[in-house]
Amino acid sequence: MDRLQQVLDEIAAEAASEDDRGLVAQYIPELAKVDPQQFGIAVALPDGRVLCAGDAATGFSIQSVSKVFTLSLALGKLGDSLWTRVGREPSGNPFNSIVQLEQEKGRPRNPFINAGAIAVADLILSGHEPREAIGEIVRFMRYLADDDSVVIDERVAASETAHGDRNASLAHFMRSFGTVTHPVDHVLGVYFHQCAIAMNCLQLARAGLFLACQGHNPLTSSQVVTAHRARRINAIMLMCGHYDGSGEFAYRVGLPGKSGVGGGILAIAPGIASIAVWSPGLDTVGNSKLGSAALEQLTKRMEWSVFGS
Amino acid sequence: MDRLQQVLDEIAAEAASEDDRGLVAQYIPELAKVDPQQFGIAVALPDGRVLCAGDAATGFSIQSVSKVFTLSLALGKLGDSLWTRVGREPSGNPFNSIVQLEQEKGRPRNPFINAGAIAVADLILSGHEPREAIGEIVRFMRYLADDDSVVIDERVAASETAHGDRNASLAHFMRSFGTVTHPVDHVLGVYFHQCAIAMNCLQLARAGLFLACQGHNPLTSSQVVTAHRARRINAIMLMCGHYDGSGEFAYRVGLPGKSGVGGGILAIAPGIASIAVWSPGLDTVGNSKLGSAALEQLTKRMEWSVFGS
Amino acid sequence: MDRLQQVLDEIAAEAASEDDRGLVAQYIPELAKVDPQQFGIAVALPDGRVLCAGDAATGFSIQSVSKVFTLSLALGKLGDSLWTRVGREPSGNPFNSIVQLEQEKGRPRNPFINAGAIAVADLILSGHEPREAIGEIVRFMRYLADDDSVVIDERVAASETAHGDRNASLAHFMRSFGTVTHPVDHVLGVYFHQCAIAMNCLQLARAGLFLACQGHNPLTSSQVVTAHRARRINAIMLMCGHYDGSGEFAYRVGLPGKSGVGGGILAIAPGIASIAVWSPGLDTVGNSKLGSAALEQLTKRMEWSVFGS
Amino acid sequence: MDRLQQVLDEIAAEAASEDDRGLVAQYIPELAKVDPQQFGIAVALPDGRVLCAGDAATGFSIQSVSKVFTLSLALGKLGDSLWTRVGREPSGNPFNSIVQLEQEKGRPRNPFINAGAIAVADLILSGHEPREAIGEIVRFMRYLADDDSVVIDERVAASETAHGDRNASLAHFMRSFGTVTHPVDHVLGVYFHQCAIAMNCLQLARAGLFLACQGHNPLTSSQVVTAHRARRINAIMLMCGHYDGSGEFAYRVGLPGKSGVGGGILAIAPGIASIAVWSPGLDTVGNSKLGSAALEQLTKRMEWSVFGS
Repeated sequence: MDRLQQVLDEIAAEAASEDDRGLVAQYIPELAKVDPQQFGIAVALPDGRVLCAGDAATGFSIQSVSKVFTLSLALGKLGDSLWTRVGREPSGNPFNSIVQLEQEKGRPRNPFINAGAIAVADLILSGHEPREAIGEIVRFMRYLADDDSVVIDERVAASETAHGDRNASLAHFMRSFGTVTHPVDHVLGVYFHQCAIAMNCLQLARAGLFLACQGHNPLTSSQVVTAHRARRINAIMLMCGHYDGSGEFAYRVGLPGKSGVGGGILAIAPGIASIAVWSPGLDTVGNSKLGSAALEQLTKRMEWSVFGS
Repeated sequence: MDRLQQVLDEIAAEAASEDDRGLVAQYIPELAKVDPQQFGIAVALPDGRVLCAGDAATGFSIQSVSKVFTLSLALGKLGDSLWTRVGREPSGNPFNSIVQLEQEKGRPRNPFINAGAIAVADLILSGHEPREAIGEIVRFMRYLADDDSVVIDERVAASETAHGDRNASLAHFMRSFGTVTHPVDHVLGVYFHQCAIAMNCLQLARAGLFLACQGHNPLTSSQVVTAHRARRINAIMLMCGHYDGSGEFAYRVGLPGKSGVGGGILAIAPGIASIAVWSPGLDTVGNSKLGSAALEQLTKRMEWSVFGS
Repeated sequence: MDRLQQVLDEIAAEAASEDDRGLVAQYIPELAKVDPQQFGIAVALPDGRVLCAGDAATGFSIQSVSKVFTLSLALGKLGDSLWTRVGREPSGNPFNSIVQLEQEKGRPRNPFINAGAIAVADLILSGHEPREAIGEIVRFMRYLADDDSVVIDERVAASETAHGDRNASLAHFMRSFGTVTHPVDHVLGVYFHQCAIAMNCLQLARAGLFLACQGHNPLTSSQVVTAHRARRINAIMLMCGHYDGSGEFAYRVGLPGKSGVGGGILAIAPGIASIAVWSPGLDTVGNSKLGSAALEQLTKRMEWSVFGS
Repeated sequence: MDRLQQVLDEIAAEAASEDDRGLVAQYIPELAKVDPQQFGIAVALPDGRVLCAGDAATGFSIQSVSKVFTLSLALGKLGDSLWTRVGREPSGNPFNSIVQLEQEKGRPRNPFINAGAIAVADLILSGHEPREAIGEIVRFMRYLADDDSVVIDERVAASETAHGDRNASLAHFMRSFGTVTHPVDHVLGVYFHQCAIAMNCLQLARAGLFLACQGHNPLTSSQVVTAHRARRINAIMLMCGHYDGSGEFAYRVGLPGKSGVGGGILAIAPGIASIAVWSPGLDTVGNSKLGSAALEQLTKRMEWSVFGS
């Protein structure tokens, strides 16, 4: 394990000296304020240890990384009937495009584009008030990370709501097809709050560990999802986790992963590790620029690519 | 290895008793004639052994499975400059759609949709007559399979040509953008002949073995591509190998794979095996119905999914 | 003029005996209740006379026919700066499609598709409360029809609101681009109320007369818009007035016209007449089936087509 | 008539002094060579007189203006069964887009986009060799213009063929749907030759006169098409004659018209005149810049708009 720590330290050092860090997301003011000079990485291992480097203890807005966890939660509640509402194919289009949604009668292509995650939020809402559903998601994150300090950044949630026309458009559109069934402001309330969850790399790597361990969380000795379902969530992450840069991420990194516009990425090396990386600057398709580069170096040096060593 | 042979025999037996076999491709007469009752599977291993079951020695038209090999050949000749002509993202659209090609200025999304493979054929043609380029592809297949009996089925090639308007449309369209640079009938001559290569499962599994072995073909002790490039070809197969069913294949099978409308599929378990399966009946998105099901069973029983055991 | 009355009577008699009357709009309950056996027609002439036949005095929901009048009102208030928000080209797509709106950065193709009319409603709202803007529209209709009995059917407005997800999606989408600037519920409040205006054929034919008379309303001796602007509104009606059936309407009827899903159509024979026709059953693209047929007969028998006698 | 001649002279004088003349079409070398300083206009009247100004006797490539005449010819041969192959709705998309063609199963939206005109050329070919079909079209143009000097510019035809990939793509695409039934090189042979017909404004205005005169050509006292059909061709010209600038042309000019990338426009004032205008520089959507402006002035000064004086 000395080797892994050494690699993480090298990667953090390389990130620190990088000049071209991408652009911090501008679409909501709260995200635009974040200092782009930050970089953190954490790796959680099946034996329970978590190695880290850089700003791994600094919290950030997990944004779309939350979609992996709400999918896991919804699958646990609803089982495979979820797939009648949401597909499992890559979208081949920018993340907030409405075009395919129209062609496919309001059924989002996968749960990791915005429309798909909103449809999943609608499912989690069933039988609940928005406040309860949000509480359930936060408790799920705390349980997975084994850390009760995970919270929602209410300023980010408010900022999302104030700039949420594009997502409101998607939600109303799906509601006209019956894919969204609750009032749009309820569904978006859940969705904007899940995106506003703040975590650090250590917490996020721990929270994703069940996906590397056949659905089992070794930190809490609990089975989160079946092994079968963990494999499938990983498959969807690989295919769809990075919007229209999913192919590029598979090509360069070779691991299932999910990015968020807050600059965080969760990546899974099945059987080996759960990795969280964070750097706020984004590339042109909206994925963390240094985060992607760090994961590429990590899988190369550790020979962790699922596509062969 | 007894275990693997036993699993293959079980799978072949299950396939033999299956009633719902999908529909044989109808778009060219030569393919429509094939008997749907056939099923074969072969697994080539890094130690050089090839295990098989069912009709593994019966030849079939490899069709789009050839795209994996022409990509490998073109990368060897041109290196990464190939990617200026062709992308690496899933298409999210039926396989012969022209829509995205227009939006993206004539650059196909990936080398495994028809447009992308035609663009690769154009690159292989550079400096050659069509006859020479076709010869080069056939020699490459013989070299990979270590078998000089691999040939082109000229009746299939002629049948493709006679029904090739959709591909001619794609080729002319790309030529208007400069993605195709040779005369369209030359490029399609190469493309239709590569699709008309006839192989059996044994040959195909052997030909793909370099992708499971870090680019090295243990049968011939030759390095076909670098380890780095083999990983990347696998990544593209996983993302884009099954048209608009790529997500479903990743979800169910969990291996890089490439299908053809002749009913063949090549799948790669990195470090473990190269698998060829064939059954002529197709599902609604154009992939072998029994072939996909067989691979799902194989990876499940052998725990070969790249997404975790 | 005996001739015109005779033609109207013939057309009303033919309509009464027609069995295939199309389908009444089902998307909101209030419209679905309307009796399909009704048919009315009224023709207002520059000399102030109005001839009619059938149920010309029965009120109906004018729905999208209102878009002609809100465009006229907004042009009067804003002048040609309106065209920075809305285009003037036919859409070539079903009326509530979002696809083109995305391609064209939130600027609707024309003021007669739903998105365009919502953008116009946003302009009319400027500096007003929704209630005031709605009042202004109703007063404009009363002024044009020279009849203070024109009212809004509040049940229809409420029904539209309750089933307005598709329009809410469009409005939020345009708001994300800045084409809509007010709160979406305000804009839709105006839009749904303008659609819920109830008028009969006599009133509607009178209200449209200024478009046949160089912008001048002979009933009230007032200049509503300039002659130049009246011509242009007519041009847009001809190009865009019948959704994806605009070409068919131009081909068959040969007059500028605007239809609504309530079954009403306003058509203008420049210099000759303003025609309102109504029958609730719709054809497959959403235009009044008997209304279109009646106008085709009227222009044929009276030789009123703008494309030649 | 002094008034009309005076207006034409004014317009020609204004055109001569205009600095911003647009850009000459660059896509084929033969067109790119044309001097942009030219401008001509001719107006043919029902009484047989033709008034003109500027370079009205200079020949130019009529390009897409030919589509009006091949439609007229094909309707005469086939009648309304033509409409099973081609639609009558505006396309709402750039002129050579393939997207809608895919959505609508290979049936072009209207006969004035390239795909539609190619489908019409396929119909004219029925039972003929390409050479015969081309001969028939040229004879039709001579008959309409009452002038046997109309010829095809073979250099332009050759240049179109050499740069015809986009049209070849459309033709193969439609052939895959059965909309095109002859070999693609035959159909394009006809299409490229019809586009390469060279005429001057005088000839073109005379050739279009039947559309202003209820289908009757007063120059030759022959009925070219029925009055009914002439009206309908005018309707399609108004809706679809200027690609994605059709709405703008209707809005500004207010007449049925058809433009070509050679800089020519034919416009029809039903019952009044057939107008041909030519200036090689194009606006951003591919229509003659000075030609459109000249027609706008002509209809304004003569009060010829179909949308009201």
